[in-house]
Amino acid sequence: MRQASHRLTIATGGRGLTEVTDPVERWLAGQGVGEGLLTVFCRHTSASLIVQENADPDVQRDLEAFFARLAPESPGLYRHDAEGPDDMPAHIRAALTQTQLSIPVESGRMVLGTWQGLYLFEHRRRPQRREVALHLLGE
Amino acid sequence: MRQASHRLTIATGGRGLTEVTDPVERWLAGQGVGEGLLTVFCRHTSASLIVQENADPDVQRDLEAFFARLAPESPGLYRHDAEGPDDMPAHIRAALTQTQLSIPVESGRMVLGTWQGLYLFEHRRRPQRREVALHLLGE
Amino acid sequence: MRQASHRLTIATGGRGLTEVTDPVERWLAGQGVGEGLLTVFCRHTSASLIVQENADPDVQRDLEAFFARLAPESPGLYRHDAEGPDDMPAHIRAALTQTQLSIPVESGRMVLGTWQGLYLFEHRRRPQRREVALHLLGE
Repeated sequence: MRQASHRLTIATGGRGLTEVTDPVERWLAGQGVGEGLLTVFCRHTSASLIVQENADPDVQRDLEAFFARLAPESPGLYRHDAEGPDDMPAHIRAALTQTQLSIPVESGRMVLGTWQGLYLFEHRRRPQRREVALHLLGE
Repeated sequence: MRQASHRLTIATGGRGLTEVTDPVERWLAGQGVGEGLLTVFCRHTSASLIVQENADPDVQRDLEAFFARLAPESPGLYRHDAEGPDDMPAHIRAALTQTQLSIPVESGRMVLGTWQGLYLFEHRRRPQRREVALHLLGE
Repeated sequence: MRQASHRLTIATGGRGLTEVTDPVERWLAGQGVGEGLLTVFCRHTSASLIVQENADPDVQRDLEAFFARLAPESPGLYRHDAEGPDDMPAHIRAALTQTQLSIPVESGRMVLGTWQGLYLFEHRRRPQRREVALHLLGE
């Protein structure tokens, strides 16, 4: 049994989903591990992780619209507003989704379903550089 | 240290919770691992995982009603509607709950609290066959 | 590769966030593991785990207020009310956040980002004693 650790830097395009399935798969493929557990950890409190459908881009737009309604930018609604009107909604959206995902690995690949993609969910308005920690245990 | 992988197929009865504690415990019991980490991963984007109270069935009905209010089937609310009015709400509900759960194992059993059960949360109206990947690390 | 298991008992002050980064770090530091995976599991259905900003306390107040609006104590809204008006909202809030978090360990420390803290999120009105299971794999 062995392990490996890595950091991925992801440039987001502002609020919404950025697929990270491919860079994660590429790193995994280079580790030579057939069976194991891959953990992805988002090192931010205004971005998060999510597994979602990778087929119809409308799913991503509808998801973004849902979260924008649920945690609106609304002057006076939040005490924490010094970092901009999109910051507290971003923390709420991160709390409602995932900071971490662990995905079993079989035959050297993540066991994602046919329609599942792995996404970084940016919750700030502006593009950001985000850092995700990867950890792999297996053999 | 060793590991084991498995797939569980679960027949859901349509929207709502299906308890999977027993089939997961049964598989775990057969692995002969005393201490370790068990990961459950749902291979779908319109079903998810959740740990909830296993005592009063009203909790499950209230949960289902909450999510139905939060992400209603509402014509015109979503762009993604080709797969039926229940599909986009299903993706939202999956995003708000868990795709994956990792549970420590002690003395050969998951460390669930007294009132905790492990559930597959079906988000589509109709009964489905769902696949869950299990992964165990330990010794 | 080796593993260690532990239980933490946390006294909460009623509804809201209690930071647990320090007690978790202290236990981790005593294990002598440089690289690995640390899993934190909450053994309750009316409390949960969350990674959030540890800088401005207003973030925690805004989060609490958001969840209080989303899942209000409202007579007649829930069937499950025998354990008090705050119990079903507590189950909903737990479902929307995390029961479990796994955090990669590098150089003997969790890879939390600069502004990230690990919190137990109490969802009942009154202070409670909560139990969290810790599991560490690594070397």
